[in-house]
Amino acid sequence: MPEFRRDPVIGRWVIIDPARRFNKSIPSESESYPKDYSGCPFCPGNEYMTRPEILAYSKISGRTPNTKGWDLRVIPNNQPVLAIEGTLNRRGEGMYDKMEGIGAHEIIIETPEHNIKQAEITAQYYETLYNASIARIKDLRNDQRLEYILIFKNYGVLANAVFEHPHSQLIAMPIVPKRVREEIDGAKKYFSYKERCVFCDMIAQELSDAARVVDENEFFVAFCPYAARYPFETWILPKNHASDFDSISEREITSYAQITKSVFSKISKVLDDCAYSFLIHTGPLKERNIPYYHWHAEIIPKLIKTAGFEWGTGLYVNPVSPEDAAKYLREAE
Amino acid sequence: MPEFRRDPVIGRWVIIDPARRFNKSIPSESESYPKDYSGCPFCPGNEYMTRPEILAYSKISGRTPNTKGWDLRVIPNNQPVLAIEGTLNRRGEGMYDKMEGIGAHEIIIETPEHNIKQAEITAQYYETLYNASIARIKDLRNDQRLEYILIFKNYGVLANAVFEHPHSQLIAMPIVPKRVREEIDGAKKYFSYKERCVFCDMIAQELSDAARVVDENEFFVAFCPYAARYPFETWILPKNHASDFDSISEREITSYAQITKSVFSKISKVLDDCAYSFLIHTGPLKERNIPYYHWHAEIIPKLIKTAGFEWGTGLYVNPVSPEDAAKYLREAE
Repeated sequence: MPEFRRDPVIGRWVIIDPARRFNKSIPSESESYPKDYSGCPFCPGNEYMTRPEILAYSKISGRTPNTKGWDLRVIPNNQPVLAIEGTLNRRGEGMYDKMEGIGAHEIIIETPEHNIKQAEITAQYYETLYNASIARIKDLRNDQRLEYILIFKNYGVLANAVFEHPHSQLIAMPIVPKRVREEIDGAKKYFSYKERCVFCDMIAQELSDAARVVDENEFFVAFCPYAARYPFETWILPKNHASDFDSISEREITSYAQITKSVFSKISKVLDDCAYSFLIHTGPLKERNIPYYHWHAEIIPKLIKTAGFEWGTGLYVNPVSPEDAAKYLREAE
Repeated sequence: MPEFRRDPVIGRWVIIDPARRFNKSIPSESESYPKDYSGCPFCPGNEYMTRPEILAYSKISGRTPNTKGWDLRVIPNNQPVLAIEGTLNRRGEGMYDKMEGIGAHEIIIETPEHNIKQAEITAQYYETLYNASIARIKDLRNDQRLEYILIFKNYGVLANAVFEHPHSQLIAMPIVPKRVREEIDGAKKYFSYKERCVFCDMIAQELSDAARVVDENEFFVAFCPYAARYPFETWILPKNHASDFDSISEREITSYAQITKSVFSKISKVLDDCAYSFLIHTGPLKERNIPYYHWHAEIIPKLIKTAGFEWGTGLYVNPVSPEDAAKYLREAE
């Protein structure tokens, strides 16, 4: 079973999982997806290759579970980084701390189409994805061992997507991860000084500056953040304050789906078929409805490599100013 | 000029440097170094291709600067991420914070030999490198604008080393970077509770457990850390408490050079010619001789990719237990 271990200096947890596939040889530089994808476990007709589905959306009434005919399908990951069965058993090991790798790792198969093109993806596609994500979060809220749920998507070989078939991932974990805790602690500090949400203030300033805005609609704004770590890094934020992604209204989901489609169309136009990671930062499961945190999505196109400097400092060197990136994206289409 | 910008939520600085080379196209997967390296700016005879040297070691007495005959040569980076001239000019920009990208970025050309093999690298090689590093730190301590110096090495295309010729880099910056600040804050907390250095305690526990130890000599120990983020991540620590790398004695430098050679021989044996990053974490320039921090080196072989999950959480999934990694390395040779 995977195991959480805590770094005794900075308190960061890592997951040690020796059962994962690992090849000691140097990663190949020429990896690409197989042209023949008849063996893809996420394609319709291959449902028997995955573990039984947790959720599926289908237009066919009375569809038999784990058969084709679905529009979106959620399954447990065959190689989960965290296991759903067991107890945490938090304990010491000499001066160190560890606990069992308990949690959930699900795959959201976004579409039956293995090779869907960016141009073919509709706002409805994202709306279905977000509805499924919210349904899964609401269900997993019942598991009291869990503290945080991350929903993310890796797209392309360079972004480490093992399968080509379009999919997102959900990982529910028994801790609030370091990066989220940092955001919450920072936002709390700002709130205690200003009595305002730092993200709400950023939205106001971005809409007023306009220089970094990529897109905007009724309920959402997309911009390249002032201190962007990566070229073309783009965030999407709800204009109305809300700390929990799964608390948004149906109208907001529709609006969020529309801006997502628009932003990815722009990115795919400006950066070709670039690999990326896309993730949602929402509040911790047990800190609901907080005034100082604001859920948001982050998109990171994989355009540069990081190494010793970033590793050693936590600083990033970004060769494209967010103002330039936003201008390119804003003017696309 | 590059610019520091501060993330308003978590307070992390980034460097925005639009003058850096950046190619909007997707990074090629088949990059490798050119076979013909006659144009290598770090090779002897090509000294005119670099900016004038800051320091050079040579066996030739009265060698003319910026000509061949050197054993090690330190030059300013032609494309520095931080510029040495100017003032910080820390200021606001609406709700955001920024300052000029002031600092130093130097290249330590480790050897005149472009194609030196790991097996040919001697302990003396590392001793010369460490002496030069320490000389540069001592010199840069005179610049009161600077708060931190990172010395690091990227080796191989996968670790983002632009030049094949063996070199380390030194970046001196006007802030204490986030990752170092986290280590210092965590170590300070531990010290305030235990009245002991957390790194000293780790050394004691690692030497007693033995399971994660890779190598040991009179003054140093190398081990795979308990909560290793990456497969075969290895740290080298001085057994005697010291927070500043540049305070170590000549005998300790010799001992550090010996264990470095031994550890890299093992890594190169077990992981073939694997790309890696190698860096030294030392105390901040203006917090000298502190009882709670302990300088150390970190080696991170580039064997796995990170993406949305690590980005979104700051958690890492490590498919090789540090006990397994240490066993492989310990038994090599």
